[in-house]
Amino acid sequence: MSKDKPYRVVVIGLGSMGMGAARSCIAAGLETCGIDVRQEALDELKEAGAVSVGRNGLAFASSLDAVLLLPVNADQCRQALFGPDGIAPHLRPGTPVMVSATVAADDARDLEARLKEQNLPMLDAPVSGGSVRAAKGEITVMAAGAPETFDKLGPLLDAISAKVFRIGTEIGQGSTVKIIHQLLAGVHIAVAAEAMALASRAGIPLQTLYNVVTNAAGNSWMFENRMQHVLDGDYTPHSSVDIFVKDLGLVVETGNALKFPIPIAAIAHSLFVNASNAGYGKRDDSAVIRNYSGIKLPGDPA
Amino acid sequence: MSKDKPYRVVVIGLGSMGMGAARSCIAAGLETCGIDVRQEALDELKEAGAVSVGRNGLAFASSLDAVLLLPVNADQCRQALFGPDGIAPHLRPGTPVMVSATVAADDARDLEARLKEQNLPMLDAPVSGGSVRAAKGEITVMAAGAPETFDKLGPLLDAISAKVFRIGTEIGQGSTVKIIHQLLAGVHIAVAAEAMALASRAGIPLQTLYNVVTNAAGNSWMFENRMQHVLDGDYTPHSSVDIFVKDLGLVVETGNALKFPIPIAAIAHSLFVNASNAGYGKRDDSAVIRNYSGIKLPGDPA
Repeated sequence: MSKDKPYRVVVIGLGSMGMGAARSCIAAGLETCGIDVRQEALDELKEAGAVSVGRNGLAFASSLDAVLLLPVNADQCRQALFGPDGIAPHLRPGTPVMVSATVAADDARDLEARLKEQNLPMLDAPVSGGSVRAAKGEITVMAAGAPETFDKLGPLLDAISAKVFRIGTEIGQGSTVKIIHQLLAGVHIAVAAEAMALASRAGIPLQTLYNVVTNAAGNSWMFENRMQHVLDGDYTPHSSVDIFVKDLGLVVETGNALKFPIPIAAIAHSLFVNASNAGYGKRDDSAVIRNYSGIKLPGDPA
Repeated sequence: MSKDKPYRVVVIGLGSMGMGAARSCIAAGLETCGIDVRQEALDELKEAGAVSVGRNGLAFASSLDAVLLLPVNADQCRQALFGPDGIAPHLRPGTPVMVSATVAADDARDLEARLKEQNLPMLDAPVSGGSVRAAKGEITVMAAGAPETFDKLGPLLDAISAKVFRIGTEIGQGSTVKIIHQLLAGVHIAVAAEAMALASRAGIPLQTLYNVVTNAAGNSWMFENRMQHVLDGDYTPHSSVDIFVKDLGLVVETGNALKFPIPIAAIAHSLFVNASNAGYGKRDDSAVIRNYSGIKLPGDPA
């Protein structure tokens, strides 16, 4: 690809991460298209400077240099690629597909096999960083695939990410690293909630606990980020409880498939499931603290 | 206390934290004494510039301006203060006693009551930061007590700590915050080990996982610090498995006393107990990863 020829990319799935990634592509000067089922997301991206948006990609599929898949799960990936209006059959042979949803390693391998039938190379490339870093083009990518596929996706990777970790060449390795990352992320949120809830019950001012922990060896990225939401009494979802019902569910599946014990992750998964069952599934993942009764938290009625 | 009059302090318990704190006192120009049962620790501190050391403090107790207690647990605190050679009866009335061992809130209140009988004010002042920061005079202190007691301990607090959090005036609040801090610290180590063990089983290079996690939202202070020991295959104890058998044990006791559920901490406690039972009690706390069989870790025989 020459410097003069524009590079055209589509982002499929314009949630908080996808919208941020798409905006970063526009900011980096890529010709950017967007696909989502929600009209308001399409309008927002069009407004931001997208060259084309739609509920499917039939209008622009054959003009694309790269596809970035950022829906919620593996089923949505399959639907977007191979469903009735799926984009895969309409792409030019050789167009690289970067699969960045958090999926099981088996799902990543299944997607690769089906893409290969259509001569479409895949990067198994989950991401981390949250919506704020996505909007700044500073996603962390943990990816596995052929070196040529990394090369073909170069302009897209440059546009959206601060850091690209090359895990290996085998599809499934990127997804496995992401799932293990989510094991840590999910447990850190759940245990942060456990600690803050216990402090509340013990009569310790929560802001004081927060200040101590964030200045000491008990700190985690998630404690510092998510417990601020609890202090604010603001459970507007950045990433929801149900995301960790799904992602820690993938952790449990991975442990089962390898017959490997993951006792802490299994408990944390149950806590997110319990919070979802209590009605907090669509709230911020810090709402896992709502599992604990008999305590008063910021924002609660007096 | 005038600027001209020297300030004399004793550090009781010259383990990794206590030795660092005592060295920081010397570095800050305080007249520093030391008490320990181990002769080599006494020799080391004398060499470093202590004015007096001994297996008990009878020789210098009446000359002290402050006492810093840093043994392992509440029983050792009681022994050091009120045992056969205990220092409490020999202190001048009003000498402040800073209790910095990690103890239950009930134990902190019991120690205060007994010190009060001898007109000795107490600061309930657990610490965090590890031996490296202790040696630099950069301990984090989370303390509760009367404002006058904080004032009397000013030169000592300045010498050993980078940050002093005043939790409240009620004895027990400092210990409670420390215990909740240890809930987080202990769980973060145990889940770090769980994640690294799962990665090993899944064939992910551990250094790669470490690089991804420490650059992403799944990071914790403990993951970054302790999993380096696993990568190095070096389980030389900085803080041992048995410390978390004790500290997470205090977390479980605290939950029971408040009838408050702490499911994740309870599992993590069991994992440290299991590692201790398997013979790793005196090894670095990162050796909790030895709970997982069927994996090969750095340093293991080929």
